[in-house]
Amino acid sequence: MLVSEQEKEKIYSPGLEGIPAARTKLSQVDGKGGRLIIAGYPVEEFAGKAVFEETIFTLWNDKRPKPTETSLFSEELRSSRRFSKVIRTIIEEAVYANLPLIDILRIGSAALSLGSQKEDPKKDAMAVLSTFPLIVAWAFRLLKGQAPVLPRQDLDIAANFLYMLNGNDPDPRSVRALNTYLNTVCDHGLNASTFAARVIISTQSDMISAVTGGLGALKGPLHGGAPGPALDTVFEIGAKENAEKVLREKLKHNERLMGFGHRIYKVRDPRADVLAKAAKILYDTDEKREFYDLAMFVEKTALELLKEYKPDRVLQTNVEFYTALLLHGLGFPTEIFTPVFAMGRAAGWTAHCFEQMQERILRPDAIYTGEDGKLWN
Amino acid sequence: MLVSEQEKEKIYSPGLEGIPAARTKLSQVDGKGGRLIIAGYPVEEFAGKAVFEETIFTLWNDKRPKPTETSLFSEELRSSRRFSKVIRTIIEEAVYANLPLIDILRIGSAALSLGSQKEDPKKDAMAVLSTFPLIVAWAFRLLKGQAPVLPRQDLDIAANFLYMLNGNDPDPRSVRALNTYLNTVCDHGLNASTFAARVIISTQSDMISAVTGGLGALKGPLHGGAPGPALDTVFEIGAKENAEKVLREKLKHNERLMGFGHRIYKVRDPRADVLAKAAKILYDTDEKREFYDLAMFVEKTALELLKEYKPDRVLQTNVEFYTALLLHGLGFPTEIFTPVFAMGRAAGWTAHCFEQMQERILRPDAIYTGEDGKLWN
Repeated sequence: MLVSEQEKEKIYSPGLEGIPAARTKLSQVDGKGGRLIIAGYPVEEFAGKAVFEETIFTLWNDKRPKPTETSLFSEELRSSRRFSKVIRTIIEEAVYANLPLIDILRIGSAALSLGSQKEDPKKDAMAVLSTFPLIVAWAFRLLKGQAPVLPRQDLDIAANFLYMLNGNDPDPRSVRALNTYLNTVCDHGLNASTFAARVIISTQSDMISAVTGGLGALKGPLHGGAPGPALDTVFEIGAKENAEKVLREKLKHNERLMGFGHRIYKVRDPRADVLAKAAKILYDTDEKREFYDLAMFVEKTALELLKEYKPDRVLQTNVEFYTALLLHGLGFPTEIFTPVFAMGRAAGWTAHCFEQMQERILRPDAIYTGEDGKLWN
Repeated sequence: MLVSEQEKEKIYSPGLEGIPAARTKLSQVDGKGGRLIIAGYPVEEFAGKAVFEETIFTLWNDKRPKPTETSLFSEELRSSRRFSKVIRTIIEEAVYANLPLIDILRIGSAALSLGSQKEDPKKDAMAVLSTFPLIVAWAFRLLKGQAPVLPRQDLDIAANFLYMLNGNDPDPRSVRALNTYLNTVCDHGLNASTFAARVIISTQSDMISAVTGGLGALKGPLHGGAPGPALDTVFEIGAKENAEKVLREKLKHNERLMGFGHRIYKVRDPRADVLAKAAKILYDTDEKREFYDLAMFVEKTALELLKEYKPDRVLQTNVEFYTALLLHGLGFPTEIFTPVFAMGRAAGWTAHCFEQMQERILRPDAIYTGEDGKLWN
């Protein structure tokens, strides 16, 4: 099909907004209805119950694993780790160069090809899911000047990650919270990182290349979901009695309140509820309860004031706020948020790649706006 | 905009075929007219004249450099090489793991972030263009068990690459041929690798991430332009007198003749002419002329027989055939073809990234074909 540049202008939608680029069984984002379906399950239905391994299996196989399948699959994942000396050396070099954690993960991700005898999409995907957490935890401790902790063979993804990060046995409450988080962010339609991965694999390239491309897109500030500064307002406020004053000051000066509003969800983001519920359970201990109460109070005050200052806009607490709350409750500092997000989204990337491998190459058209017939003399 | 899945099906074009995903001043692919315009210049107008540095400058700045600008820019490129000990160590590890050259380049590309103090799209792009050839040549010699050759500060991209590959002063005829090749493949509309790079940078991610994504897509067998087996038929035939017999045998058994036909160009690919002309000059020496004559004879015979066996299809010699001919004439073995292609296409990737950085995020829609409301109990 060859059409004129004028005809192309008519169908051109900047950023491909509203243009379907694939059929998928993996997830549906219904921003108007405030719903997110993942592999047939509403996110609030499974995220707080499944372990991350079950979610990966479900995305890859379009069916939920039986208990025996889960333990087999978990075992398979654990033995798929590619955490060789070479990979560790590359991580150490990147740590030594003082790169951000997400870039260390990206360089490590590209290097996962080093551990494979030959390209195998399934094996490569298993390596990605099982090794990303190892890279993140290993690099994180090195960046902090702490001795890294070797992975354990008896622990699943979430538990092993917490173990490698902290160097001690993770408590079940934290393991549950991290599983819930990873499940909640595992897939979200054709977001830019998933789309990048699909474009790459659509040339029949390999899984590692596609996932590394996804990581490259995920780190961009315009890619939603990375909950960097969402709790900064809470930290800044510090105590309930300051909340209204600080928030009014911000709203008067038209500052954006981090943690509220989302491009797609005009009603409440369904993931926010899931994470709020998980956070409530996680923070239900004597030493943690105070910060949780503060955060809830800040949220309540912010929503009231937003109604007052921006009555024409529907601004809800977004997923970043609760993500930040949950991850903070796990003891994670901000710089690890995006890498942990990537650990979860990798489930979606790989699942989308399996799906895209059955389809044709993603090769759109362009509208040429340059000159023609120039002479080079 | 939220539309129903049925409405989406109406506008869905698999592979985004015919759907414009960006406006670009960089190139126009006119498959029907058999024309390729790059930054305003028909490819046959500049590819045989410009040095690759001029082409990069033209793509990045939308204007051709003045002679003083060219030397300044070439100097700047040479001092942008990021070929530190770390990068070389990573390359050596990848060589030791016996990875294909294109994967070594991809891992090295991801690691180029190691050489930057902070992300700067311009500096990162300069590093990509100036360091890719170093990585390829370095790894190539290591893979062959030869001692690698350090780059020279007095040589431009094409000349330095030939020098590092062969370990001796490159002859001007070869330098000219390589420049022509790199110019010819520098850009080609929104091909899948360029598109992948644009998707990644559209999140405001960095140049290194985007280019690495492009490389990931380029290595896929469905990505056009990589001229692997295009000359295999010529090698197999070996001498003029075997041509007709071997070709008839293939056509009778409905084997595809590598080197003929292209998805987009239904008439002769304009790049084929440019490369044919460059090959003719390159092979015009006593020791090379014989192979050239054989290749030309095979081409002529193949085109005649294709008309006989497939009279309803327009099958022209494609760009891969002449690329392979030219690169073979430069003494390159097949395994280096795709990495050299990437060295050229990197000019387009980076230019497209600069362009995309002014635009919004590329975030298409999807058609959900899965279930809804499943229970997880």
